Amino acid sequence: MSPEKAYDELLHRMKEIGVLGNTAGVLGWDQEVYMPAANAAYRAEQLSLLAGMCHQKFTDPKVGELMAKAESSKDLSADPLSDAAVNLREWRRSYDRSTKLPQKLVEEMTRVTSQAQVEWVEARKENKFSRFQPWLDKIIPLCREQAKCYGYKDHPYDALLEDYEPGLATAELNRLFPPLKESLSALVAKITSSKRQPDVSILKRACPIPVQQAFCRRMAEAIGFDFAKGRIDISAHPFTTGLGPADTRITTRFEEKNFENSFFSTLHESGHGIYDQNLPSDGHYGTPRASAVSLGIHESQSRLWENLVGRSLAFWKFFFPELKKAFPGVFDDLTLETFHFAINHSAPSLIRTESDEVTYNLHVCLRYDIEMALIGDKLKTSDIPAAWNDAMKKYLGITPPSDAMGCLQDVHWSHGSFGYFPTYTLGNLYSAQFFAAADKEVGGLEAKFEKGEFAPLKKWLNEKIHAQGQRYRAGDLCVKATGQPLSTEFFLGYLKGKFGKLYGF
Amino acid sequence: MSPEKAYDELLHRMKEIGVLGNTAGVLGWDQEVYMPAANAAYRAEQLSLLAGMCHQKFTDPKVGELMAKAESSKDLSADPLSDAAVNLREWRRSYDRSTKLPQKLVEEMTRVTSQAQVEWVEARKENKFSRFQPWLDKIIPLCREQAKCYGYKDHPYDALLEDYEPGLATAELNRLFPPLKESLSALVAKITSSKRQPDVSILKRACPIPVQQAFCRRMAEAIGFDFAKGRIDISAHPFTTGLGPADTRITTRFEEKNFENSFFSTLHESGHGIYDQNLPSDGHYGTPRASAVSLGIHESQSRLWENLVGRSLAFWKFFFPELKKAFPGVFDDLTLETFHFAINHSAPSLIRTESDEVTYNLHVCLRYDIEMALIGDKLKTSDIPAAWNDAMKKYLGITPPSDAMGCLQDVHWSHGSFGYFPTYTLGNLYSAQFFAAADKEVGGLEAKFEKGEFAPLKKWLNEKIHAQGQRYRAGDLCVKATGQPLSTEFFLGYLKGKFGKLYGF
Repeated sequence: MSPEKAYDELLHRMKEIGVLGNTAGVLGWDQEVYMPAANAAYRAEQLSLLAGMCHQKFTDPKVGELMAKAESSKDLSADPLSDAAVNLREWRRSYDRSTKLPQKLVEEMTRVTSQAQVEWVEARKENKFSRFQPWLDKIIPLCREQAKCYGYKDHPYDALLEDYEPGLATAELNRLFPPLKESLSALVAKITSSKRQPDVSILKRACPIPVQQAFCRRMAEAIGFDFAKGRIDISAHPFTTGLGPADTRITTRFEEKNFENSFFSTLHESGHGIYDQNLPSDGHYGTPRASAVSLGIHESQSRLWENLVGRSLAFWKFFFPELKKAFPGVFDDLTLETFHFAINHSAPSLIRTESDEVTYNLHVCLRYDIEMALIGDKLKTSDIPAAWNDAMKKYLGITPPSDAMGCLQDVHWSHGSFGYFPTYTLGNLYSAQFFAAADKEVGGLEAKFEKGEFAPLKKWLNEKIHAQGQRYRAGDLCVKATGQPLSTEFFLGYLKGKFGKLYGF
Repeated sequence: MSPEKAYDELLHRMKEIGVLGNTAGVLGWDQEVYMPAANAAYRAEQLSLLAGMCHQKFTDPKVGELMAKAESSKDLSADPLSDAAVNLREWRRSYDRSTKLPQKLVEEMTRVTSQAQVEWVEARKENKFSRFQPWLDKIIPLCREQAKCYGYKDHPYDALLEDYEPGLATAELNRLFPPLKESLSALVAKITSSKRQPDVSILKRACPIPVQQAFCRRMAEAIGFDFAKGRIDISAHPFTTGLGPADTRITTRFEEKNFENSFFSTLHESGHGIYDQNLPSDGHYGTPRASAVSLGIHESQSRLWENLVGRSLAFWKFFFPELKKAFPGVFDDLTLETFHFAINHSAPSLIRTESDEVTYNLHVCLRYDIEMALIGDKLKTSDIPAAWNDAMKKYLGITPPSDAMGCLQDVHWSHGSFGYFPTYTLGNLYSAQFFAAADKEVGGLEAKFEKGEFAPLKKWLNEKIHAQGQRYRAGDLCVKATGQPLSTEFFLGYLKGKFGKLYGF
């Protein structure tokens, strides 16, 4: 078999695995959105069967042989940015990772984390860290074992990061995070001590849910989510899922007295959705060439539309009149500035998912420090609550009244997902840097938003980010798109500018 | 390997195929209900991959070996009604049928019918039978070839029927249909010539769709469709699909000026759904023991709730006051009797799917006669339009103005589904016979309906029909449940009673 034939055969197999993976995607979407809850056990069986099939097809030794054969060709990889070279690079990466873990370790991890999730739910309910701690004592050594199997140079955490942010090393996070923390803490202090504060009570005004739904759809459409190739539905936890080349689905949730939640989660998920809808399609669908780069880059797209665009004054200059009209009598008494200040309220708070643009990343940095210490064997699990509360006090000036509101709040550790949290902050940093570059190149983005013109920004993202698929790793993509490596300067500059104006410092 | 072990292994494999089959089910449901149309080609690819996987797993020679081993046990099949014996009987039947067709024939049939469906759509649109005829000339010989591979005693049509109504022979249809046709034609004549006719204009009164939706849900719930283990959604063509042991989904469609359509299609699909929801569950799910008997028996459940219950005076004695309240001002001026007469209007019409309880089966008999002649090589495809129109004239006294309204109206032949139509009429016959038996055993069903009590009837069906799964073939189930073989007497007696009263003869 020629290397070219081997490559074609691989392409066929990988696309087929993609078709199966998207089948699981439909089942997963349906489970969250429409499936009767009583059917959960059977659905779990379906998903597990499909996951097993995908894993088996992907780790088939024949795949390894075909890959080796295809890699032996000088032509296929002559240009490292060619479609074939990109695909081979990413398939190799995933294949090696999938085959490096012994079956026994995979099974043990699955077994432990599936029980740990149940225990975490209970521990949080009971506000009893000691109930969850023994599970962390099982999970963390397993994560270290995984890291050992994957291999790493500096720190075992590097090997775990790779699952979420390929190519990213702790060295990079250690470069970015400490100065970020410092600046953000200073910013929080300024905001907290400011005499000028927004009237957040207006965020609780009653807005009929059907009108919220229509307004969310209107905003999603305006920024460029394509409803001919996608949907928006309701689920308990908002998410985005790509189910096919012309099928990207986002979800949101609605509370009558919390329009902020549905508006910004819709813009957030629309950002993810727009990325998914504009990845290369046609023959590339189902290959790395047509896949998202990393969690961090994905998050940059959601945060860009949610925050840089959706919480900007320019955006609401355009939408506020529509808002007033859509919800008669609800916002009539407000000025644009009052409204804009309210949706940009910032204050230290306990729960990461409810925090704001400024404080959010401090929640993340805190978790990163603890994760590094745990994986590096520098912190005992019994010391997590104290470490957590100390950091909260230090960064945000508040102390959780309970572990349920503190170190038990997130599901990630019960999944064994150490290395996931940093991608949230990377997303925020990338979003500001991309926005700045787009604004510089396209020119006058905000003036365009005021007129409801979001297509120029979307077009820039389409070309610079979306159409690239996995051609570049995140760090290289950033250099390509913005002319320089990822820096905190854009994000911090953006925050200081906006919040300085709002809070008057 | 012991026969018992072989049986357990088979059970495991078959349930796994069931899990995959239900995965395709979710994809199919989603496609009809929520998927963006633009994703159709990719979804087709997914479904075809899953169908191929199911077929491959089912026809695996290892399955044949395991089955032979399990069948070698005297214990497993000692009682032919035991779970194991029933499962082995049905697996054997399906396995033999699946393996009897040469791969080439299966592929040719798939290829021809997938093109034929497209051509049929166009031919109907253009009202041009000659465009579809060449496709029938390809399909019918392929059906005959299939019948030859399957094998049959009397008529090739017997072998085709087996796909839809296992164990049913044309001899049985030839016993039932001719006297049925005769009686129905006589009934149609009486109804048509009656001076008393219903005011069907009330069926076109505007009923807001959201209220129709709520009312449909209310009726479905009242007759026993379990919404904790099911859903109702909207699709272009109503259908029911079972996606798991606690996940049965029905769909309906709504037009503001056609409440009759949504009401009765909801009751119809609810009947299918109630059957599905009450098949044996637990360990049996995914086996023949927990599966529906045949299309005819399935249709008996839908038609029973749609017609015997849902178009009865007793049903509306209970629901009419609710209806008036739900649609203020719409039905206020009507008496129960006027309403009941209108929803039981009967008149010869051209389109099967829009016909009524009396005329429906004449449409079916006509198709059966033509199919028998085509498969038996007694009718040339070029003579179909003439044969169709002659039969319409003879049975219903009307002549289609076009082939689009005549022999091109149904999709079935383009699928190669010869043998499907008779199951509709079998369903009607079974429904009346089951209802009569239930009424006799439970006593006073109509008096119960008047009080909104539908559970006693459902309980009888649960025990006599649903809980049996595929333990009995349709004919035997009928004898078991009603004490005698299928007869036209109950259905004809029911029609004559109801329509005699309404139309005054």
